[in-house]
Amino acid sequence: MVVSRDVIRLTPGGIETLNLTLQHQSHQLEGTHQVAVELEMNAIAFGEVAKTLGALKIGATLSVKGFLSQKNRYSNMPILHITQFKMLNES
Amino acid sequence: MVVSRDVIRLTPGGIETLNLTLQHQSHQLEGTHQVAVELEMNAIAFGEVAKTLGALKIGATLSVKGFLSQKNRYSNMPILHITQFKMLNES
Repeated sequence: MVVSRDVIRLTPGGIETLNLTLQHQSHQLEGTHQVAVELEMNAIAFGEVAKTLGALKIGATLSVKGFLSQKNRYSNMPILHITQFKMLNES
Repeated sequence: MVVSRDVIRLTPGGIETLNLTLQHQSHQLEGTHQVAVELEMNAIAFGEVAKTLGALKIGATLSVKGFLSQKNRYSNMPILHITQFKMLNES
């Protein structure tokens, strides 16, 4: 679920970029235990993905694919780079 | 790659648990750009997975599967729960 979203900006190279915060809730199997998982994650998207995500409403739910990377050289906080997504509910 | 590893502890319920730190380096495709990805991540494993990982040397490389969750209720730092892994190089 999209819980916050910045405005679309341009990189120095002129590519659209969007920062957003996603919230995830699920149950996952760990050994034989079902565990409740909650996570809030900073995410970033570029180009066409950024443009489409930039039109989403807060509260929209989506399924995303991509990869994790370090936010920057000064922080070991991971940020999710969204390279593909599927809308689940536009809220 | 395993960059640090705690000792195996027992949860209050008597299940083995292991905290470790993994370092990842790769190149990922973002739109049409190859980006260099670096990430250091806290990870945790339970039960049999913890016991096997607990025997690994620092510097061992592995491929892992699992899920991310918030470290605890006071921190939004994600931690990787390893539920499966494959050894790549015992170093």
